[in-house]
Amino acid sequence: MSPDLIRPADPALADALTTIFPADRLSATIPDRIAYARDLWPMGQFWARQGVFPHPPDAIVWPEAVGEIVALLRLANARRFPVIPMGAGSGVCGGTLAHRGGVILDLKRMKRVRHLDEASLLVTAEAGIIGQHLEEWLNGRGYTLGHFPSSIYCSSFGGWIATRSAGQLSTKYGKIEDMVMGIEGVLPDGTVFASKVSPRTAAGPRLDQLLVGSEGTLAVITAATARVRPVAEARRFAGYVYEDVHAGLEAIRKVMRQGLDPAAVRLYDETDTALSLSALGLDATGCLLVLVFEDVAGLCDVKADLADAICRAGGGRALGPGPGEHWFKHRYDISYKQSHVYQAGMMVDTIEVATTWSNLDRLYDAMRASIGERMTCLAHFSHVYPEGGSIYFTFVGPPGEEGDIETYRSVWNDAMNACVKMGATITHHHGVGLLKAPWMKDEHGPLIEMYHAVKRALDPNNILNPGKLVP
Amino acid sequence: MSPDLIRPADPALADALTTIFPADRLSATIPDRIAYARDLWPMGQFWARQGVFPHPPDAIVWPEAVGEIVALLRLANARRFPVIPMGAGSGVCGGTLAHRGGVILDLKRMKRVRHLDEASLLVTAEAGIIGQHLEEWLNGRGYTLGHFPSSIYCSSFGGWIATRSAGQLSTKYGKIEDMVMGIEGVLPDGTVFASKVSPRTAAGPRLDQLLVGSEGTLAVITAATARVRPVAEARRFAGYVYEDVHAGLEAIRKVMRQGLDPAAVRLYDETDTALSLSALGLDATGCLLVLVFEDVAGLCDVKADLADAICRAGGGRALGPGPGEHWFKHRYDISYKQSHVYQAGMMVDTIEVATTWSNLDRLYDAMRASIGERMTCLAHFSHVYPEGGSIYFTFVGPPGEEGDIETYRSVWNDAMNACVKMGATITHHHGVGLLKAPWMKDEHGPLIEMYHAVKRALDPNNILNPGKLVP
Repeated sequence: MSPDLIRPADPALADALTTIFPADRLSATIPDRIAYARDLWPMGQFWARQGVFPHPPDAIVWPEAVGEIVALLRLANARRFPVIPMGAGSGVCGGTLAHRGGVILDLKRMKRVRHLDEASLLVTAEAGIIGQHLEEWLNGRGYTLGHFPSSIYCSSFGGWIATRSAGQLSTKYGKIEDMVMGIEGVLPDGTVFASKVSPRTAAGPRLDQLLVGSEGTLAVITAATARVRPVAEARRFAGYVYEDVHAGLEAIRKVMRQGLDPAAVRLYDETDTALSLSALGLDATGCLLVLVFEDVAGLCDVKADLADAICRAGGGRALGPGPGEHWFKHRYDISYKQSHVYQAGMMVDTIEVATTWSNLDRLYDAMRASIGERMTCLAHFSHVYPEGGSIYFTFVGPPGEEGDIETYRSVWNDAMNACVKMGATITHHHGVGLLKAPWMKDEHGPLIEMYHAVKRALDPNNILNPGKLVP
Repeated sequence: MSPDLIRPADPALADALTTIFPADRLSATIPDRIAYARDLWPMGQFWARQGVFPHPPDAIVWPEAVGEIVALLRLANARRFPVIPMGAGSGVCGGTLAHRGGVILDLKRMKRVRHLDEASLLVTAEAGIIGQHLEEWLNGRGYTLGHFPSSIYCSSFGGWIATRSAGQLSTKYGKIEDMVMGIEGVLPDGTVFASKVSPRTAAGPRLDQLLVGSEGTLAVITAATARVRPVAEARRFAGYVYEDVHAGLEAIRKVMRQGLDPAAVRLYDETDTALSLSALGLDATGCLLVLVFEDVAGLCDVKADLADAICRAGGGRALGPGPGEHWFKHRYDISYKQSHVYQAGMMVDTIEVATTWSNLDRLYDAMRASIGERMTCLAHFSHVYPEGGSIYFTFVGPPGEEGDIETYRSVWNDAMNACVKMGATITHHHGVGLLKAPWMKDEHGPLIEMYHAVKRALDPNNILNPGKLVP
């Protein structure tokens, strides 16, 4: 690869890093710098199309011990270079791009499962372990984390925490912020910390929760303790078709209101349903609802039967377990389909927002109208809670006359502005990164000063993932 | 009352407050200043015994609108006097004492229920509403907050949030931090804020959660949105006796592990059981376990039956619903029994800590040994979770030779040091106040700097409840 593809790295920086990292865990080569110049943010696809790699790091390091991270952060403060913590690079918002240069701190070598406390249903693992590896380790001992993002094969435990990730069974098991019971890490000045693990506390605010969603800007998360559950004894699928989105949402809301505790709930709008059902060779009109129940044997069927009565009473035509089983079998496929669309010269991305039940229909209409101005738009509702849920929009379309990057930015600008106008949160589980940072002030209002205060105090030299999350 | 009972108030301060508050919502009289010179921290009993009131405020104000709070905070910054937000004064840690003088901001006139969103199961109410009033308002419409602290008749919605309160059915409905979905308030500089209400978000850390447990030091909470639930269709009680604490804890842990979702779980140690069962005229040996289930009709008995099998298999002798029904009927009495003990010349207080299941037995032994050195000690386990639970110690005894305040402080010092040594959290739901502030550094370690950073940035003049929570 030609060296002039990317800007030159700072040679003095790589030299300085050799005092901390052995040669096989430190790289400033061009192939590595290019490989680490992108995550799964579609912007990387546009850049690749143009043959540019605008945000390469100066170097990449692979620490194996907390002491190395401490030394790196001290060096970074002394020499004022950015340090960007990174898990597996599956982020879709540019959160780990080295857009101000500096060092990528790849945590994947810190991947031990340190302790399973079976009595307390708690696992402690290092941040860099790949999600599927952690899940398999737990499954082998009869447990599950209950966290199944579609990226589970290419995302890490620490990355989930840094971005407030959600898994596909979040309705039962919660999002990662519900699971995290303690965090270990290193503050920007090199101070090592470990928060106390307790089921609940009233000893002031839970300060470690400030790191959940901090996207590598406040601390390097090196390990965490999360709750686990015994693997469910029973699982049951159910599928229904509703006349429209509204009828389907009403059925879901009533199921959630009764505390029936489904593991997954997915309602596809008409367009998304047509795609989903035609894959099954089924009649493709209306809106498909899929429910999954997981529980101890004595509760699974009772809950599923109670929900079934509600779903039928709400006008749902029962389809049996087929659609749910099909979804379950293919539930991780979506994370690996993006590049085909881009290779065809098109663009595709997803926008996941959330709001309360009373606002959900209106949010769906407003954002679909906004996104649909330029793009083909489909959506499903998943990650529901008794209080509301998220909408997962997918948009697909051609670059348009403005060019791909301009078109892409316009779609996002309009969608985010519509979301803010409707009072909904700008992201349910993909996080913020560079992509959504411009709307963080709208999201948090005056309380954003709390974030700035912590950032200034912990990281006065602004070395930890600068310019991300909140501009 | 003689004016020399307490220090004189600053007359200029009361004068300045008349520019904001009408005469009937502002007081600097001695009776009012004495009435507001204590909360339910037992230290107030010792002071009353001595006939002293060491921490009177200079004045008390009763705002009815957010604008008045804004004006008060601006005045406080200009003149540098403390402002202490207060709900109903049921705190047991000295969190609302005016130990540096200043103005008590009593929020009880801001007590409207502003909105019930039945579709989203959310209620928005002002901070000063008394808990029981809010619960009755909701019950009248078919809903419950599910939050039942024993202080429910003398504590407020905002006070619950400020102190991370727990109700007696927390095992099912969660603590207040699990219920709060949005907070409105005023920052120390007078800036008004309202956090976004969303079932979940990934837009960075949830900053409003930093206020849950901030005990009036970071903001004045003026209103909040919390989740509600339909009133349960069915309730069932069960009681068992176990040979010892260990056997009882094992039964509870297995019930929680199966996801059987009891509303309340209470295990009394041998001493506490003797008191509880003798009140019922029952054989008083062993450890009493009480379970309460609440749910939709189709689930309540199923869950209770599954739990019953576990409890019997673990060696529990079934007592039927009697002990649970008796507890339920008298569940709020404890908050009103303290003063009788003090009138008899004795002292009594409670210490509630929490830890994981694997640490719970050891914590119980260590703290009971510590407290038992000077005092009669009884305990029950309640507020349990799949990961662990809390222990609620009650100590009773005579003042001793050191004098009551010295004895009291010694018991607390030893108990908190034992708790910290065991790695448990120093408080599950009573909060910190002045009483436990010395152990906050032990509790949080280096992360405490996050709290200090926010406090410094939001409240540079240190006017909002200074000297509380973190010294």
